[in-house]
Amino acid sequence: MRTLYHIPLSPYSRKVRLALAEKRIPFELRIERFWERRPDFLAMNPACTVPVLQEENGFTIADSYAICEYLDEAYPDMPLFGRTLGERAEVRRLIAWFDHKFHAEVTRNLLYEKQLKRLLGRGNPDAAAMRAGYQNMKMHMEYIGDLAENRAWLAGSQISLADFAAAAQLSSLDYIGDVKWELSEPARDWYARMKSRPCFRGLLADRISGLAPPDHYSDPDF
Amino acid sequence: MRTLYHIPLSPYSRKVRLALAEKRIPFELRIERFWERRPDFLAMNPACTVPVLQEENGFTIADSYAICEYLDEAYPDMPLFGRTLGERAEVRRLIAWFDHKFHAEVTRNLLYEKQLKRLLGRGNPDAAAMRAGYQNMKMHMEYIGDLAENRAWLAGSQISLADFAAAAQLSSLDYIGDVKWELSEPARDWYARMKSRPCFRGLLADRISGLAPPDHYSDPDF
Ligand SMILES: N[C@@H](CCC(=O)N[C@@H](CS)C(=O)NCC(=O)O)C(=O)O
Ligand SMILES: N[C@@H](CCC(=O)N[C@@H](CS)C(=O)NCC(=O)O)C(=O)O
Repeated sequence: MRTLYHIPLSPYSRKVRLALAEKRIPFELRIERFWERRPDFLAMNPACTVPVLQEENGFTIADSYAICEYLDEAYPDMPLFGRTLGERAEVRRLIAWFDHKFHAEVTRNLLYEKQLKRLLGRGNPDAAAMRAGYQNMKMHMEYIGDLAENRAWLAGSQISLADFAAAAQLSSLDYIGDVKWELSEPARDWYARMKSRPCFRGLLADRISGLAPPDHYSDPDF
Repeated sequence: MRTLYHIPLSPYSRKVRLALAEKRIPFELRIERFWERRPDFLAMNPACTVPVLQEENGFTIADSYAICEYLDEAYPDMPLFGRTLGERAEVRRLIAWFDHKFHAEVTRNLLYEKQLKRLLGRGNPDAAAMRAGYQNMKMHMEYIGDLAENRAWLAGSQISLADFAAAAQLSSLDYIGDVKWELSEPARDWYARMKSRPCFRGLLADRISGLAPPDHYSDPDF
């Protein structure tokens, strides 16, 4: 069976889970405690990060960027990158925005500080980083809201990987109760639409032992 | 004329300059002091980062990931991402490695601390970050050396954007004299081959006023 090595709260793994599910490509999840640096996993991905996708025939793809582009090339039904060059440029600009800018300015300051640091034994959350994360969230929620108000989906008239990249970051943060949905009603409405898609079911069913999500986490009408 | 908004030491801009030159796509460079947040530039790229590419007809593409994928789709001669799905996955894995892992572990700790921080008025270089940068450079030079010893080019038998992504990071650091070439002879030999390609000429001719590169910077037989 096709296998995705992941951890539940990894936003990059969530982006790939959404892309696979939206394309209706069956897969199995396997948790990889990447911080243990398992030799067989290092051989699959020298960067030792999740996600890593392994196809049934053994073909392995490391890195969520490489995986998502691969999925659209190998399984072209339900294209997630847009059709025209202009659409594709906009989808990818926004993927980079969420994967790197949103991640560095928001997700890292909250999710990494509060959860991952503990897993990795790197000490306590840094209060200044957390303040910066909450502060930066304002601009980002407004930006998502602006996009959502002016377009059917974040990158244009069709749903695309830009929506999944954004939803992946937000859903990881939402699991730990750290998204201030009141910051933008259009962003919240867009996310409610995302949550009610069948591809989202797997994410909403995630439960990490010892860390319960807030009640609204899996409720599409939150 | 096609225009690339850039700053000379930006590794992401250098990656795009190399890709354009390798594909023999003519372009003009325009320096963008992104820290001034010029309104017309913000309208082209809300992230306010360089590089941004503007085609002659006004079509604008922000973000080096979106630009490079666009170039390969719009100008398919001299493909830079490999042909088979397997080659393409490997090229993209390595692009992510150099754009994000190498950048975060090495380039940022040296180039940002020593140069960009001053431009942005964010204070003095952080000594601990610089130490980490030099320390991390060892692993990275060894990894490049390993790839270069086992393959014709970093991602396989053909030159690809993986080579340009790596060379872009290294050439920015080399300009400020911060690459320890003695760490890996195969990495140095690979870089000498890169430097002697016609596409590299533009980078080697860069001169920033008040900041001279070391003598070996533009010498292919360094
Ligand atoms: N560029 C990688 C980044 C993946 C990433 O950073 N994953 C995190 C978990 S969300 C990880 O594995 N971190 C381990 C580490 O940085 O050592 C991708 O897009 O797949
Ligand atoms: N994801 C962007 C990153 C570009 C980037 O970080 N560029 C730097 C210069 S090398 C920049 O413009 N930084 C401005 C900032 O971060 O505010 C890309 O690949 O184009």
